[in-house]
Amino acid sequence: MKHIAESTVRRLSLYLRFLEDFEAQGHATISSGELAAQGGTTSAQVRKDLSLFGSFGKRGLGYSVSDLSRSLRGILGLGREWNVFIVGAGKIGAALAQFRGFRQRGFKVIAVYDVEPARIGRPLGDLVVRDQTEMESDIARLRLDIALLAVPPEAAQPLVDRVVKAGVRAILSFAPAPIHVPPHVTLRSVNMAFELEILSYALVHADK
Amino acid sequence: MKHIAESTVRRLSLYLRFLEDFEAQGHATISSGELAAQGGTTSAQVRKDLSLFGSFGKRGLGYSVSDLSRSLRGILGLGREWNVFIVGAGKIGAALAQFRGFRQRGFKVIAVYDVEPARIGRPLGDLVVRDQTEMESDIARLRLDIALLAVPPEAAQPLVDRVVKAGVRAILSFAPAPIHVPPHVTLRSVNMAFELEILSYALVHADK
Repeated sequence: MKHIAESTVRRLSLYLRFLEDFEAQGHATISSGELAAQGGTTSAQVRKDLSLFGSFGKRGLGYSVSDLSRSLRGILGLGREWNVFIVGAGKIGAALAQFRGFRQRGFKVIAVYDVEPARIGRPLGDLVVRDQTEMESDIARLRLDIALLAVPPEAAQPLVDRVVKAGVRAILSFAPAPIHVPPHVTLRSVNMAFELEILSYALVHADK
Repeated sequence: MKHIAESTVRRLSLYLRFLEDFEAQGHATISSGELAAQGGTTSAQVRKDLSLFGSFGKRGLGYSVSDLSRSLRGILGLGREWNVFIVGAGKIGAALAQFRGFRQRGFKVIAVYDVEPARIGRPLGDLVVRDQTEMESDIARLRLDIALLAVPPEAAQPLVDRVVKAGVRAILSFAPAPIHVPPHVTLRSVNMAFELEILSYALVHADK
């Protein structure tokens, strides 16, 4: 795997969104300048980002919107469906289970787990909360690809260890705790408390 | 304002969480080594991070847990209450309005806005969804500090322009769109679609 910076993947993801808008509006081609303007970057950066993955577009003609969309979807791993599962059926887990945005991009939430007897067996969106003791066997049986972790901070590392041992290689954590994973596993974290603290930090320090 | 890297604020935020755990367990002092072990860093890094904000701890005695907690809360702007408002009362906005974690850290959600007549006037947690046309006057009247933006991508930039013009200097956006703010405003983004794309990107490229 060629190492690509996270900022590059972020821009590719943005380019794809603009291309999809362009496609919906019936445009057939787009220039690197137009893509750059939408993404708040330069056309040189757009060309550099795309050149990492091959040769796109024709000099003077720009890029084919549909070809480039398809290529970017492939590069971003969006050309297929991923099986997603949620660990933790509390407030955040429940919101995730009912979030429709995932499905549109090929992320199919197919299982939700919890340890609380009061939550197990209850419906959540189109799913029913399953007993967390069934998680490991489900990971193999249902070919679960991506774990969304919505558990209290102290439960996060032990759960990550369990899902990694069961073969999961991609985890998105919402737990406000530092988590360690082996090098073959990709971990992303969304920590709303931390995002708010960055804001409050900025607000108090700007006041001075 | 001294420029402090985001990664430093992130570590300070983690240190504070450990200190609060330590305090709850009745410990009076903590060493930089213990803080480092919890935060997955080194004691030299801990001392360097803290030295940016003054002189803490005594050689050989470590840090006073309660003093350091108080200092970190002050540094992170957590020594006071912030008035938070949510723009967009859809699935994400509703989840945010009902998320209890904010209040515990001094982030008080006091208003939710939407443009949809069907949503305006409906209860959401302890609040009632307000008409978005009232937002600007509320920002001044209720002294709203922090905006949480949970709106469709195409609505994001115009709304940011409106809240910035009304005096808001801190925004957390959940909209999958690039947003521009003037230099005196701090913007953070949580983009779940993007986080998932980083994971799918890693999964397809590791397969090769």
